[in-house]
Amino acid sequence: MRGVCLLAHDAPTDPDFALDDLPGTGRLDLVCRAITASLLLSHDIREDATVWVSLADDLCLTVDGSAVRNLRPDERSTAALIRTALAERDQLIGQRPVEPAPGLTLERGGRATALDHARAAGTLLVCHESGDPIVDVEWPADPVIVCSDHRSFTEADLDAIGDAPRVSVGPRALHADQAITIAHNYGDTEGYERY
Amino acid sequence: MRGVCLLAHDAPTDPDFALDDLPGTGRLDLVCRAITASLLLSHDIREDATVWVSLADDLCLTVDGSAVRNLRPDERSTAALIRTALAERDQLIGQRPVEPAPGLTLERGGRATALDHARAAGTLLVCHESGDPIVDVEWPADPVIVCSDHRSFTEADLDAIGDAPRVSVGPRALHADQAITIAHNYGDTEGYERY
Repeated sequence: MRGVCLLAHDAPTDPDFALDDLPGTGRLDLVCRAITASLLLSHDIREDATVWVSLADDLCLTVDGSAVRNLRPDERSTAALIRTALAERDQLIGQRPVEPAPGLTLERGGRATALDHARAAGTLLVCHESGDPIVDVEWPADPVIVCSDHRSFTEADLDAIGDAPRVSVGPRALHADQAITIAHNYGDTEGYERY
Repeated sequence: MRGVCLLAHDAPTDPDFALDDLPGTGRLDLVCRAITASLLLSHDIREDATVWVSLADDLCLTVDGSAVRNLRPDERSTAALIRTALAERDQLIGQRPVEPAPGLTLERGGRATALDHARAAGTLLVCHESGDPIVDVEWPADPVIVCSDHRSFTEADLDAIGDAPRVSVGPRALHADQAITIAHNYGDTEGYERY
């Protein structure tokens, strides 16, 4: 499998937002692009991939590529899916998750919950500008790429991530969706060997 | 320099469209993501990069990374920039271009004009699933990545492109913005050597 774990520090946690201003909604545009970069190919979906998004360290949204429906490449429709999920937040009781739509799961607990799911599913690789070149890191069987949003990882993020290997995907600071695209490509090509 | 030449077969050529339905506007969402993938880094812009977009083989929109202002990562604001440019289309007289905003140029002539600009600026590399692996192609000093949108290149496209080398960025069919991101990364890392 492949996984992506996105720590979206400013993302909304309630559905009371307009689809017309995603950048002003805690950079939801970035979250949407990260989700689609994680799961979508041209006219296809990565059924072996799952994304866990920590929303403002309050909620965890899971998008399962094998089950999600109506995930389209554009930001607005992806934001609408997220809004649909957040509309169910009042149904959250204790730690029990809700499934607002096929392939979407919402639950309490932000960063810790997202990272717990990620660790249970695979081996963390943390996208970090000071990490080792991706070409020098042993690629695990079940990689989970951990990314931050437009902010750097906080100290608390890094504490929660622990000693997972840090990898750099290149010499320039990229957006989360760009880093995810490059990591997927590294996996797809089996280390830039298979085209 | 770096360049990207996008052949957007269904893109709008007049400004009479709503920002709320970019996928239904000739897949303008895809065009926007391709432009931002071509020019934007995290909190930075590629000042050495230029994008030429053929809009429905009717108009050519140029976005110059060294001059464009207010280019933001989200699709909607990029679509608004394009709409601003298209609002000037009535000012087009003959082959004389207009500059609706800093760094934006609009002119008559779609594919041929975009490819002419691209050839004048650098060396074409055509993103194509049957191309040679990008790692096996000699990387020119001034690469211009030629991409199609959600459609495959047409026979007329391939005729116009001529014998430019075709490169594959990986074994899976990707969106244009994803392919552009990977090509930029290949250049940034000097062939996956520098991180």
